[in-house]
Amino acid sequence: MSDFRADGHAAVDWAADYLERVRELPVLAQVERGDIRARLPTSPPDRPEPFSAVLRDLDEVLLPGMTHWQHPRFFAYIANTGSPPGILAELLAATLNSVGFLWRTAPASTELEAVTLDWLAQLLGLPSGWHGHIEDTASTSTLAALAAARHVRPDARFVVCSEHTHSSIDKAAALLGLELRKTPADDSFRLRVDELDLTEAAAVVATVGTTSTGSVDPVAAIAERACAEGVWLHVDAAYAGAAMVCPELRWAFEGVEHADSLVVNAHKWLLTPMDCSCLWSRRGDDLRATHSLVPEYLRTPEDAASLADYGPALGRRFRSLKLWAVLRCYGRDGLQAMIREHLRLAELFEGWVRDEPGWTLEAPRPFSIVCFRREGSDDENEALLARANATGELFISHTKLNGRYVLRLAIGNAGTTEDDVRRAWEVLRECAR
Amino acid sequence: MSDFRADGHAAVDWAADYLERVRELPVLAQVERGDIRARLPTSPPDRPEPFSAVLRDLDEVLLPGMTHWQHPRFFAYIANTGSPPGILAELLAATLNSVGFLWRTAPASTELEAVTLDWLAQLLGLPSGWHGHIEDTASTSTLAALAAARHVRPDARFVVCSEHTHSSIDKAAALLGLELRKTPADDSFRLRVDELDLTEAAAVVATVGTTSTGSVDPVAAIAERACAEGVWLHVDAAYAGAAMVCPELRWAFEGVEHADSLVVNAHKWLLTPMDCSCLWSRRGDDLRATHSLVPEYLRTPEDAASLADYGPALGRRFRSLKLWAVLRCYGRDGLQAMIREHLRLAELFEGWVRDEPGWTLEAPRPFSIVCFRREGSDDENEALLARANATGELFISHTKLNGRYVLRLAIGNAGTTEDDVRRAWEVLRECAR
Repeated sequence: MSDFRADGHAAVDWAADYLERVRELPVLAQVERGDIRARLPTSPPDRPEPFSAVLRDLDEVLLPGMTHWQHPRFFAYIANTGSPPGILAELLAATLNSVGFLWRTAPASTELEAVTLDWLAQLLGLPSGWHGHIEDTASTSTLAALAAARHVRPDARFVVCSEHTHSSIDKAAALLGLELRKTPADDSFRLRVDELDLTEAAAVVATVGTTSTGSVDPVAAIAERACAEGVWLHVDAAYAGAAMVCPELRWAFEGVEHADSLVVNAHKWLLTPMDCSCLWSRRGDDLRATHSLVPEYLRTPEDAASLADYGPALGRRFRSLKLWAVLRCYGRDGLQAMIREHLRLAELFEGWVRDEPGWTLEAPRPFSIVCFRREGSDDENEALLARANATGELFISHTKLNGRYVLRLAIGNAGTTEDDVRRAWEVLRECAR
Repeated sequence: MSDFRADGHAAVDWAADYLERVRELPVLAQVERGDIRARLPTSPPDRPEPFSAVLRDLDEVLLPGMTHWQHPRFFAYIANTGSPPGILAELLAATLNSVGFLWRTAPASTELEAVTLDWLAQLLGLPSGWHGHIEDTASTSTLAALAAARHVRPDARFVVCSEHTHSSIDKAAALLGLELRKTPADDSFRLRVDELDLTEAAAVVATVGTTSTGSVDPVAAIAERACAEGVWLHVDAAYAGAAMVCPELRWAFEGVEHADSLVVNAHKWLLTPMDCSCLWSRRGDDLRATHSLVPEYLRTPEDAASLADYGPALGRRFRSLKLWAVLRCYGRDGLQAMIREHLRLAELFEGWVRDEPGWTLEAPRPFSIVCFRREGSDDENEALLARANATGELFISHTKLNGRYVLRLAIGNAGTTEDDVRRAWEVLRECAR
């Protein structure tokens, strides 16, 4: 074990150094497809190599091919943060290496998962008593929830959602053999309830914080319709759910208490490293009836607590440890402070765009995603994005709204400062000249 | 970052100490359901706590509720190992915290995943040119593969497998809305090809190393039938696939070159911490056609390399880093040495049982799982297992074979020595008296 200790200290120093210098690296990897592969041996070694060789090649071979999600000027997709307590908890979880498919195979992991999901439910203002567990991604959480919806209404053929719902809903529906029916959105990219048709629907999906713009579907009105027609309501709050730690933002969760299931990704805006998707359901028994398939060789007296019975995967690693570490090391105050700062920065950037001739805002901004555009064609905006990202100084992504190419700046990294956002704006304006 | 560095060194010391002392801890957690939960606060903290408080409570609150998968006398289910290089690579992956849903969001992670899967394919003697990628668990790998089978044969209604196939196949089929048809097994728990009916089948699943006994289905004969009838052949080698690093064991992979897809879990017998399920397919294009659903806001020129298009989940963490670290730090020699030692230990234990009056072997032993029984009733054997596990000295599990309760000793932890196996046998005999 002396090697493990020495190698471990070297790995921690590497990690600490990386987090200190990541700001100096190009955000978006400046490599071509195949560059990294070409620098790696085509065959594995016969003889063991020391861990120091892995650390060396991580620096020399892999790092130039990394897009740095931990960079404070990562503004693409949904920016995230692997925070120090979360990172170190992953080391501990891998050290314990428990596999929590039954209560008895990992009692502490299983019970901590229930406790941390209860804690997070309290922080987000959710009703008490919901069953909570962790899946890897929102794709899987949604699959688990929609499978339960199909289970309770086996003759229904449709999943209904808005045209701005995330692609993971399409994927889950396709796996389950359900058809997806997309409801039009209003001018603010929210599902139009007057266009909602729940005929033969197994489920309806409402989004709190769409990927493109952060728009919020009218959950209360959708819930009313879903309840009246006996349709499962799944709420996708993968991104913006985290913001509900701030009471002043809870308008976005109005009606969520009527949801049958709800997903919030702690690995997005809640400081937890990939992957940690939190799924709650007020119908835990239905979730369990859908996914439980206990063969003889796994049968134990404590089955009811076994979390593998609530989703598609049997093997489950100790994901609750990192969420627990994050909730403790930041506390309610720390989480609120980060969300509020990100909203302040997004509002600042939004103001700069609004005030600058030749630039326009393209969507309302409920949270930390700003959608904007430079005057000119779609192609010109696409070229502008490519030029800006090629500087390595920032990384932003795009979407299409009303058929037009739109730039997106998404704030979500805990290291992002006002100077970072200002620098992004400078680079964008320079690249537009 | 000074806190991260100091906390990180403390975490590494905790991990090193844990791995040094895990042998002294009871293997199976000696707690009742609810014990751990009762010792945790019911609400999250408002104010931030130091990481040292998390480490303290890990020791004082959680550790008594851990079943220690890293214990050298963990012999239940499929024993595994989170090895030092794998553990430290998880720290590094969490530090980088990349999300590899597109090539451009994580070029190094995406290309390293292809390279490590090619390396592992070479180590296991698989054909070259198969598409390889990593899913979280075999449940998901199988779901991804069977979804592709349904995609290429949309009118087929069945998945065919043996009665000893793992429950994850049941779960995947249920999610996909396919019916499962279980074929009887022979006296050695191998699928009976003479009973195989592939009518209206989308897929047939052959297992190399069943969970109960490690039995090996006749893959070549099944492949011949599958090929003739145009049915997708998925090979589940989640456990025993790792053993193919030893050429003398490759008899078990005869015919695997005809498989359409194949899963091997590196987090089982290949020294990689949870989770790392390796899925190969010689029909990568079909896998991609099944799972690709690229919305506008994720469109890039490098789509063909984006690994989220080959399975159910969009978000993908940097799992290949730990597999790369393991393959390098053990090398072919190190992996072979571990597998061969585990087979030697299993053979030893098998011999002790065979030679001891009042005990019987209950299944052939192709790999490292020994199925056995003490004379007496099922209830007496179940009570014996409970007594043995309650000592905390070892953890074994059970299965049912031909309707009878059977004890299983599964060797798979890299720290297991001959003394550990001998001690397990002593405890079992003591508990039987």
